[in-house]
Amino acid sequence: MKNFNAYSIIDNKKNGQKLSKAEIEWFIEKFLKNEIHDYQMSALLMAMFIQGMDKDETAYLTDVMLNSGEIFKFKDPTVVDKHSTGGIGDKASFILAPIAAACGVKVPMIAGRGLGFTGGTVDKIEAIKGFNTSLSNAEFKKRLLKNGIVLMGQTPTIAPADKRIYALRDVTATIDSIPLITASIMSKKLAEGANGIVMDIKVGSGAFMKDKKNALALAKSIMATAKRFNKKSCALLTNMDQPLGCAVGHSLEIIESIETLKGKGPADLNEVSFELAAHMIYLAGLAKTPKEAMKKVQTSLQDGSALKKFREMIKNQGGDDSVVDNYAKLPLAKSKTEVLATQSGYIKMFENDLIGLACTEIGGGRKTKEDIIDFSVGFYFHKKIGDKVKKGESILTIYHHPEQKNKVQQVTKQFQKNIIKIDAKKVSKPKTIIDIVDMKKAK
Amino acid sequence: MKNFNAYSIIDNKKNGQKLSKAEIEWFIEKFLKNEIHDYQMSALLMAMFIQGMDKDETAYLTDVMLNSGEIFKFKDPTVVDKHSTGGIGDKASFILAPIAAACGVKVPMIAGRGLGFTGGTVDKIEAIKGFNTSLSNAEFKKRLLKNGIVLMGQTPTIAPADKRIYALRDVTATIDSIPLITASIMSKKLAEGANGIVMDIKVGSGAFMKDKKNALALAKSIMATAKRFNKKSCALLTNMDQPLGCAVGHSLEIIESIETLKGKGPADLNEVSFELAAHMIYLAGLAKTPKEAMKKVQTSLQDGSALKKFREMIKNQGGDDSVVDNYAKLPLAKSKTEVLATQSGYIKMFENDLIGLACTEIGGGRKTKEDIIDFSVGFYFHKKIGDKVKKGESILTIYHHPEQKNKVQQVTKQFQKNIIKIDAKKVSKPKTIIDIVDMKKAK
Repeated sequence: MKNFNAYSIIDNKKNGQKLSKAEIEWFIEKFLKNEIHDYQMSALLMAMFIQGMDKDETAYLTDVMLNSGEIFKFKDPTVVDKHSTGGIGDKASFILAPIAAACGVKVPMIAGRGLGFTGGTVDKIEAIKGFNTSLSNAEFKKRLLKNGIVLMGQTPTIAPADKRIYALRDVTATIDSIPLITASIMSKKLAEGANGIVMDIKVGSGAFMKDKKNALALAKSIMATAKRFNKKSCALLTNMDQPLGCAVGHSLEIIESIETLKGKGPADLNEVSFELAAHMIYLAGLAKTPKEAMKKVQTSLQDGSALKKFREMIKNQGGDDSVVDNYAKLPLAKSKTEVLATQSGYIKMFENDLIGLACTEIGGGRKTKEDIIDFSVGFYFHKKIGDKVKKGESILTIYHHPEQKNKVQQVTKQFQKNIIKIDAKKVSKPKTIIDIVDMKKAK
Repeated sequence: MKNFNAYSIIDNKKNGQKLSKAEIEWFIEKFLKNEIHDYQMSALLMAMFIQGMDKDETAYLTDVMLNSGEIFKFKDPTVVDKHSTGGIGDKASFILAPIAAACGVKVPMIAGRGLGFTGGTVDKIEAIKGFNTSLSNAEFKKRLLKNGIVLMGQTPTIAPADKRIYALRDVTATIDSIPLITASIMSKKLAEGANGIVMDIKVGSGAFMKDKKNALALAKSIMATAKRFNKKSCALLTNMDQPLGCAVGHSLEIIESIETLKGKGPADLNEVSFELAAHMIYLAGLAKTPKEAMKKVQTSLQDGSALKKFREMIKNQGGDDSVVDNYAKLPLAKSKTEVLATQSGYIKMFENDLIGLACTEIGGGRKTKEDIIDFSVGFYFHKKIGDKVKKGESILTIYHHPEQKNKVQQVTKQFQKNIIKIDAKKVSKPKTIIDIVDMKKAK
């Protein structure tokens, strides 16, 4: 390998020059060997952030991070996964994965834990007693190929370079860069062996991407990178100006997911989950069009095969699948407090980030990595944007413990003062799916 | 002090926002207490580099770095120093300081050592046997006020924040930023107590600033910062496309400095040193105009008072002042090798950076901080840009040890092939002083 020096590579990027594959490989590999210091990596990341990176550079970075760890490979073209950029109340994985699996897709979910204002898929499923998300790689492969559905937590062997770089980005304000996000997501998704990737890019006040323009740029960047690695992909841009569905909190979200699989889900959660599942089926080559795939989605719900897959996954991973019929098996806090509307009118907006933080306040999230999550607390929203509301009517229910009265009082005030905005004028309901970007559009 | 967080401050600068005084103070102070990590400091430095900083931010950074260490204060308005951005063969300090001191200026020189391609003032003076550059602060003050001239090395108590930040900048490609250079220079110059500062900003292939535009921007930035701190300042932009004077190397440069004080200096070194000295006298309020100050400069040379001040400084600091009359007291290598012109024509240019590196190759510079400098080696140039040269004629003499034949052969080739460019067509001599920027121009 050619010998470069760290200074010149940082200097080149700082001056807006394009880095070569060899330069990026050399820098990251030396960094992983601790021959390049954290302070040099963070300087390069900041230069990459501000000066940007083109498609080539993004692919080079993805490639070296991907190859820093273990890589699963599946010949089967029906191995297709979904990735969401994350948002409040996002439980779509629990719905779309069983649906897609019921329709013949093999869904290799390797998911994260929550930190800060969004919950984590791995944490949420652990609300089900006994559910084991720490699988061996052999077990992961076996379950995927046999049952078409498996869910495990991230392991240290997958894209370790991303893990180290992400930790630095997290404390140096270099998270929200499109090429860096792309390389981080894609290195992990490619490592888990997916041959197709459906992106759910959240747009709005509760998302990384605050506007459609940036969300579209991220969609295009991810799809261009997927193409480099000969993977199929598409992206849905979905609304994150309010929680997805009505439930926020671990047990509450599992209940809502099961209800949705039973055909009783809220409209926005149905729409997002089903459309994502349909696109997975389509990318897997199991339907000629997304529309045809949507028919399969509907069938899997009506004939109960999707719900059956969900039960199967719980059982296979050591969980108590009777939870599907008896929600009392999930931990749920005993006390309920209603948050009442302080005026009549229409729900105009939610300060969505603050909802996640409010949930953390009552124990339903982590402030630090060491915090233990209380699965039993959360919020259930009765009103969403555009809904009419009367003064004194309940907008949401807080699920909490009796001894949390003071905290709940604070959180209630926070909702009434800072989170919920009510307007006297009529407000139209936002579109749930803002755009669907396929390979043609992405070019 | 208000409580900020490192992430938000980095994020603000990354997004091109202006940082407040409190934010900059908080960040640097936490960094010095090791509560902010190197990797966060380097991310902020890169963001500052690319997004820039305005006059306010530059002054805030200067202020906090200045206040991180010991500060000398002198009420005497005649305490005036010069600072050079550094270049090959720059020995102007040894000439202008005794001249200015002989005319009544008090010159508090706290100078650096050489590393890489430029030599250091402190190293050069140490070619004189016995000269002590490690003075106590009390000794420094006493010498300055009594003799008007003192030269010591940088101490760890002066602007320690600059020291730590500079070390990071040095390995993260964030050196050549105008606001960062300004804060680094000014925090040190203000700490040494100068009430007036004359800048010598080198422009050309052997300087940080490769073109006049950048040099002018640095001049204005430094002068604006000086004004904030109620200090007088001005700047000379001087040519660094070739070595200043004819000598490069420690003993050779001391000899050339003494020759210049005796009135036998090369034209460019005379011009730069005398003009800088005149501006110091002018800023000290000892002349009404730089022109009037120049008359005093000439007198101090003609009546021998400048040379006397030089002797006085050597003696006061424990050096052997007989060196002034007997250059044999300086270590000088025994062998000489001529570098001959490979064609006839006119000297068009020198790759000036490479001259410093070539000098380091034969021992006259440091590659690492631990290297010991050989004062006795160096180069003496017989030809400068614009001079006519015949094939086979000597362009410079290499001073070296007899056992260095192989090294000298390599260095000779390097001069002939890569450093010296000869053109058949006539080449005009470059201007030595490119511009003089005073307070009015800087606004």
